[in-house]
Amino acid sequence: MAIDPGKALGAQLPPAEASWTQDQIILYALGAGIGYDQDPTSKEVLQYTYENGLKALPTYGVIPVFGTLMSLMTVPGIQINPMMILHGEQYLEILKAPMPVNATVINEAKLTGIYDKGFDEEKKRGKGATIEVEVLTKDKASGEPLFKNVFTTFIRGEGGFAPNGPKAPEAGNNPPDRAPDKVLEYKTMGHQALLYRLSGDKNPLHADPMFAKMGGFEKPILHGLCTFANVGRAVIDGFAGGDPTRFRSIKVRFSSPVMPGETIVVSMWKESDTDIIVKAGVKERGIDVISNAKVTLFA
Amino acid sequence: MAIDPGKALGAQLPPAEASWTQDQIILYALGAGIGYDQDPTSKEVLQYTYENGLKALPTYGVIPVFGTLMSLMTVPGIQINPMMILHGEQYLEILKAPMPVNATVINEAKLTGIYDKGFDEEKKRGKGATIEVEVLTKDKASGEPLFKNVFTTFIRGEGGFAPNGPKAPEAGNNPPDRAPDKVLEYKTMGHQALLYRLSGDKNPLHADPMFAKMGGFEKPILHGLCTFANVGRAVIDGFAGGDPTRFRSIKVRFSSPVMPGETIVVSMWKESDTDIIVKAGVKERGIDVISNAKVTLFA
Repeated sequence: MAIDPGKALGAQLPPAEASWTQDQIILYALGAGIGYDQDPTSKEVLQYTYENGLKALPTYGVIPVFGTLMSLMTVPGIQINPMMILHGEQYLEILKAPMPVNATVINEAKLTGIYDKGFDEEKKRGKGATIEVEVLTKDKASGEPLFKNVFTTFIRGEGGFAPNGPKAPEAGNNPPDRAPDKVLEYKTMGHQALLYRLSGDKNPLHADPMFAKMGGFEKPILHGLCTFANVGRAVIDGFAGGDPTRFRSIKVRFSSPVMPGETIVVSMWKESDTDIIVKAGVKERGIDVISNAKVTLFA
Repeated sequence: MAIDPGKALGAQLPPAEASWTQDQIILYALGAGIGYDQDPTSKEVLQYTYENGLKALPTYGVIPVFGTLMSLMTVPGIQINPMMILHGEQYLEILKAPMPVNATVINEAKLTGIYDKGFDEEKKRGKGATIEVEVLTKDKASGEPLFKNVFTTFIRGEGGFAPNGPKAPEAGNNPPDRAPDKVLEYKTMGHQALLYRLSGDKNPLHADPMFAKMGGFEKPILHGLCTFANVGRAVIDGFAGGDPTRFRSIKVRFSSPVMPGETIVVSMWKESDTDIIVKAGVKERGIDVISNAKVTLFA
């Protein structure tokens, strides 16, 4: 296993085609928990789940791109154990609103950052490495950029390959020292991960008790990107009058997993009319699950 | 509008291809309510919702065939208003167990029964007509029959076209005059219809409050075939040790709709080791929703 920044940095992955239709948009919203513990006939629910007037929950933008991460292993200069990859941070920015409810797109990915945490001489192993992959998603027919993702992954066990290289940027987006301006809660379903995984991330960690135990968890955990969806949803509900087309970007750091059935508590601090600092936690255990987060809105 | 049994009876519809994969099987099970109000790590849930060891909830057999009903309007001798069609009864029989979790099939449908309820001279309109369509589903590659459906539809407003024709057969399957041998309850989710409809039946009656009101309902109703799925599930849970591959056939009559969020109560009477008489009702309103029902099991 080794990482060679000289070879890997700036590498472009082969362009990948993806497409989706209304049914995937609806399935994603239901997987995020939309409709549960809500009035199913309300506009808040039906705008995301009924084809007449359907709008995309815009965090959907991570879904058609998620498979790109698996191509990371094919980049020259990247030899890593896929079991050691943690999804550390996620950025998504809408370049052309609204997020379409059906589309055929081309994903263009490149490796934009490699950061070395160093080598632990005593334990004889790397302290970890961070790899950033930026993916630009364009409409296939028009070539127009639709949205951009940055996946930040943390590779356990690697490190020491570039001791004098650049350090990973600070996550930033720390909440101000005052009570949040708004707090919204979303109860998740006990079987929510089973539904969310139909949107594409089939990691057995989210379904199979045995895999969960192997991963060090008491039981299958909810997808970090499902919690991510609820952070986007909360800012739309709390600061955009429920209008998902005003959503512009989201940046989060994953700190701990939600267990299906728990209640996600999203605390929000308004920095301006368009910039909202966010933190998400679990009500039942009083822990943070997403930190250093920010959502921006179109003015 | 008119029905001409001389022309229509025995008519064959053009063979139609359909296919499905594991994701559709899982989506259907979740739409039926599997996993809700249950331990999501239990075998009862994971066998229907996790690709490792996946089994089909066998009532899935209605799904790839459902579109056939729309072809009814193209049969010579059948001129009816699609708004007047009610789904009255449903029969499904597994010819080759287990129901596959992925397949490409050919559906061969024919019109096997037309029954006239007569003409109301006073109101100057038909008392209704019953049309039966039988659909045999074969594996495309091998030609082997997999399962058979009989859709019984009731056409409001028609009638008087064959006053001396055969009368519709009795529904039968009346429960014996004793307390049920087993009763199982399944609470449905408030937004369950929004999820179930992703399996194919997009009738807005199940999502849109306005359409529901036009149909004479206070709010969107749950799909009759979603309740049907829970009748099959109950007999598997109650009399087949939870093993869906023992399910052989199901026959139901739809009498009233379930409202999403209500609790389906399935009462079962064991007639033999393989034959179970069933009735389903709604706990909250104390009404019957499925009657004259029977599920049979493989010995």
